[in-house]
Amino acid sequence: MLDAQPTDGCGPIRKGPGAPPLKQQIFECIRSAGRIARVDVAKELGVSAGSVTTLSSELIRDGFLIEAEGPPRDTGRGRPPVALGVRPEAGHVVGIKLSDEMHTAVVVDFAGRPVAEASLPAAVTGRSLATTLDEAETIFRMALDQANLPEGAVQAAGVGLPGLVDHVEGMLLWSPIFRDRRVPLRSMLADRLGLRVQIDNDVNLLTLAELWYGSGRALSNFAVVTIEQGVGMGLVLGDKLYRGAHGYGTELGHTKVQLDGALCRCGQRGCLEAYVSDYALVREATAALGLWGRAPGSTRVLLEALFDEAKAGNEAARSIFRRAGRFLSVGLANVVTLFDPPLVILSGARMRYDYLYASEMLEEARRLTLDQGRPAARVEIHAWGDWVWARGAATLALADLTDVLISGEAA
Amino acid sequence: MLDAQPTDGCGPIRKGPGAPPLKQQIFECIRSAGRIARVDVAKELGVSAGSVTTLSSELIRDGFLIEAEGPPRDTGRGRPPVALGVRPEAGHVVGIKLSDEMHTAVVVDFAGRPVAEASLPAAVTGRSLATTLDEAETIFRMALDQANLPEGAVQAAGVGLPGLVDHVEGMLLWSPIFRDRRVPLRSMLADRLGLRVQIDNDVNLLTLAELWYGSGRALSNFAVVTIEQGVGMGLVLGDKLYRGAHGYGTELGHTKVQLDGALCRCGQRGCLEAYVSDYALVREATAALGLWGRAPGSTRVLLEALFDEAKAGNEAARSIFRRAGRFLSVGLANVVTLFDPPLVILSGARMRYDYLYASEMLEEARRLTLDQGRPAARVEIHAWGDWVWARGAATLALADLTDVLISGEAA
Repeated sequence: MLDAQPTDGCGPIRKGPGAPPLKQQIFECIRSAGRIARVDVAKELGVSAGSVTTLSSELIRDGFLIEAEGPPRDTGRGRPPVALGVRPEAGHVVGIKLSDEMHTAVVVDFAGRPVAEASLPAAVTGRSLATTLDEAETIFRMALDQANLPEGAVQAAGVGLPGLVDHVEGMLLWSPIFRDRRVPLRSMLADRLGLRVQIDNDVNLLTLAELWYGSGRALSNFAVVTIEQGVGMGLVLGDKLYRGAHGYGTELGHTKVQLDGALCRCGQRGCLEAYVSDYALVREATAALGLWGRAPGSTRVLLEALFDEAKAGNEAARSIFRRAGRFLSVGLANVVTLFDPPLVILSGARMRYDYLYASEMLEEARRLTLDQGRPAARVEIHAWGDWVWARGAATLALADLTDVLISGEAA
Repeated sequence: MLDAQPTDGCGPIRKGPGAPPLKQQIFECIRSAGRIARVDVAKELGVSAGSVTTLSSELIRDGFLIEAEGPPRDTGRGRPPVALGVRPEAGHVVGIKLSDEMHTAVVVDFAGRPVAEASLPAAVTGRSLATTLDEAETIFRMALDQANLPEGAVQAAGVGLPGLVDHVEGMLLWSPIFRDRRVPLRSMLADRLGLRVQIDNDVNLLTLAELWYGSGRALSNFAVVTIEQGVGMGLVLGDKLYRGAHGYGTELGHTKVQLDGALCRCGQRGCLEAYVSDYALVREATAALGLWGRAPGSTRVLLEALFDEAKAGNEAARSIFRRAGRFLSVGLANVVTLFDPPLVILSGARMRYDYLYASEMLEEARRLTLDQGRPAARVEIHAWGDWVWARGAATLALADLTDVLISGEAA
């Protein structure tokens, strides 16, 4: 499970172009440790104890750090050493995941700890940009209410959504959740919410959450494959999120698994997504089981009905999940064959439909992977909820806010 | 086309862990420029003219550089400035491409210029490791003869072959061209040829040739897709060859384009290779045209017969190439959708079968690629012969030899 705090050391100091100033690295090291003595910060970073003392004094003076009681000594005797910790009230950020049917937000304090969350069912047909901005503002305010924070207490927001997002430029090229195209979404959200905003593809943010808090912490390379309304992939190569040459990242869901195959919502045929995502399952359920008639409602309601049928032994319902699982095996095998990651994390709320990843499906993915002596990739299933994605968005915002507050540098 | 020499500047000096010593960087800069004045080397690298003068004097003294007449001045007047160049006789390397039916070798001098090449038809059924080592020695000696060089004049060799190659450890896990598995091929070849050897996957070496001498010179990211006996891919990400987490690289040919599809020589079903590589075309030709009976012989002979039939208007022959082209479109579209490179180079001798990349095929690849406003990848066709692959192998050997001779460091 996702830990509340990463427990790995913060590693040696980063140098060279692009590396943050030492003061910020000291701060990040303390945030990542939770509570840590000055001498251990110096040891971790490989810098002098004097620098840590000087710079952490400035950080205490400016209200970003506090002195606190450290963990008890190993001997169990004597007074625990004085440790440094982040002052949680030094700032707050909100992370928001926007999606087709449900928006989720989480409020995180300056220490990186979630303090409140909120969700907003939002099944809208033919959603526009204007509606999306309204909804984003609504879920933002709901989260503030939950956290019992006044508006001014939150200084930054991170927003993740499916589609092609240019994170650096803050542009949304295309999202399946609303119709508008080529939208300067970052500045629009910043105007609407009245604070700094960062945007990114939602799966990239989930992947960052895995890299910072989850199974990816110990790994330089891994892939996250998500199944939700669509199929997404986040890829960490050499400890960094791989965004592709143009910055829009990987689009596993739209790789073709069948020439002239099933119609995808992107308008093309044979996409992996058109076989394994929510709407693909619902489409099959509609044809085979007539579920639209029996259970009208949202995609989620229909999927639950289909899942119930499968559990109850309905062969048609089972075969829908089985076929989706086989195509998912193809997609996973192709990821492993092309990228050769040591770990693939299967994630997303829909992983509770265990038919998709039953042992025979994972076995099939293994069989479909070129082996010939290459070590096999490990597969982990993380059936986590949307709040983890939102936490990835919050972490992005927190990193950005920390840049601004501590180094005085806008990203 | 591949230029004889790269013409780009050598860029600013590389620093940090893993960067070669300044003397070696000066040498590489001069090799990459062909002829260049000392002052321009200093300008390119961003180092003092004094360092360049001192270190290049050592390189001249040790026989690696020569003084030569530089290019005429822009004004057209006055004596051309004195330039530095690599002394070609300072060393020689051999690059070898081993494959199913034909081995190719090229001899390259210390300036990186090809001075001789040789090829050896080698269609052997059920080839063993012992036979492969014999053949490698034969093609090596043939190349030396062509170059009119005594054995001792060549100090290193680079060898590329298809399959899973651990370049760093010098291990071959598996190759389609012989039956043995998990072979310490680098040391075996070094023993047999009596010199330093580096091994790598053949497509990686072709990709290095594109990065150093070809279309990839100006790009940080690009993909090379090859069609030969198999389908291969080389991927440059962030100016470096991407080798995957375990060092064996990408295996596009064994990604699945059809669930339960055509049988591949790897033993699995539905691999891209099983639709577009030589043996896939021959297999179809056998069934539809009875070509085995009419034109017994090697795969190459059969393919030429099939190509002739298609050119002559035989619809069955045309449909074989067309189907292969459509599956190739799927493979290319998947590469672009996943990696988002600005350039994909289609390469390999078989690109002369233009049915595989006729305009409708490239158009289909474009249609199958998730677009939504993302800039399209450019596709280039390089119907180059095997000697370019061998040159990539030679360049690998030359880089290794340069490390040893100039920095005294074995890779």
